[in-house]
Amino acid sequence: MFVAPALQKLLDELERLPGVGPKSAQRIAYWMLNTDRETVVRLADAITEVKDAVRFCSRCFNYAEDDLCEICRSHDRDHGMICVVSEPRDIPPIERTGAFKGVYHVLGGELSPMDGVGPDDLHIAELLRRLSDPSVREVIIATNPNVEGETTAAYLSRQIKSLGVRVTRLASGLPVGGDLEFADEVTLGRAIEARREL
Amino acid sequence: MFVAPALQKLLDELERLPGVGPKSAQRIAYWMLNTDRETVVRLADAITEVKDAVRFCSRCFNYAEDDLCEICRSHDRDHGMICVVSEPRDIPPIERTGAFKGVYHVLGGELSPMDGVGPDDLHIAELLRRLSDPSVREVIIATNPNVEGETTAAYLSRQIKSLGVRVTRLASGLPVGGDLEFADEVTLGRAIEARREL
Repeated sequence: MFVAPALQKLLDELERLPGVGPKSAQRIAYWMLNTDRETVVRLADAITEVKDAVRFCSRCFNYAEDDLCEICRSHDRDHGMICVVSEPRDIPPIERTGAFKGVYHVLGGELSPMDGVGPDDLHIAELLRRLSDPSVREVIIATNPNVEGETTAAYLSRQIKSLGVRVTRLASGLPVGGDLEFADEVTLGRAIEARREL
Repeated sequence: MFVAPALQKLLDELERLPGVGPKSAQRIAYWMLNTDRETVVRLADAITEVKDAVRFCSRCFNYAEDDLCEICRSHDRDHGMICVVSEPRDIPPIERTGAFKGVYHVLGGELSPMDGVGPDDLHIAELLRRLSDPSVREVIIATNPNVEGETTAAYLSRQIKSLGVRVTRLASGLPVGGDLEFADEVTLGRAIEARREL
């Protein structure tokens, strides 16, 4: 195969990206070759910058560019409500709803005895320490609605209740806009249990 | 939306890539944040390097890192056979077949009166100049099997024949491994016309 070596190197690196196979890598590489230098170098710089500038918030473990992330620094947020998520990537979808004005705490994973992930591998001690602040009124547990997420929620719930802080969990039920016909049994079961008055 | 500014910038730049929407951009960005710095910077460097190192071969207009591309420089290729393609991206699939040992000529597009692309916009004059070398025995036209590609092939064929050089075109027919049932009429018609003795 005769491909310019710099192009081959780019193809190899692009194929490491999640969801990028040989065909997409080729499409992206040729786009880069055909696009003006400025646009392409801006992407390369943004990649390097993210690795240099982004670290973990010392309070909530979300991505941050300073010691504290923008949410922990904000005076417009309700610091008495803490939403606990597994990963930083779980924060943007919650932010997009506009339904939550509190702050977050990122665990950095979920309890998984099978994979050897125990309470000490997550930022649970740091969460409990935050709860010693008497202004914290409620913790909303927003771990994933799967086995690991539910296990983590149950564990956290016990720990937090013993501190006398209110603990809630995101509701399970039918996705809005979904078809009842295609709902799985567990989701539908939860939706029936959690039915509300009309 | 609270996202670390460097992360937001990376997301914006990633979304410019072909085939990368907001979800894939987010998946790639979080992968970059969770991957060791060395791997990620290697990609950023490969991107910049490709823009700095890669230019067009002065003979065939394929991508090259020197004045001539690796194929034009090679002593293992048959320089008497020239395969004409529309774009550099058409070369790797032909190379992968292993069925062609000649050299290439990249037109840089296809004739398209609708889009205002005429013969002077493509590297046709340069191709005809290459054919003045008496060692050239055959030109294989491998433009795309669509309206623009066929128009370009017909145009080139007239020009090249007038120079007394043999011109051939890639065969059209059923894709190997395909289902006859799903073949379009034009392809099937060509396959019948070009049927061969068994």
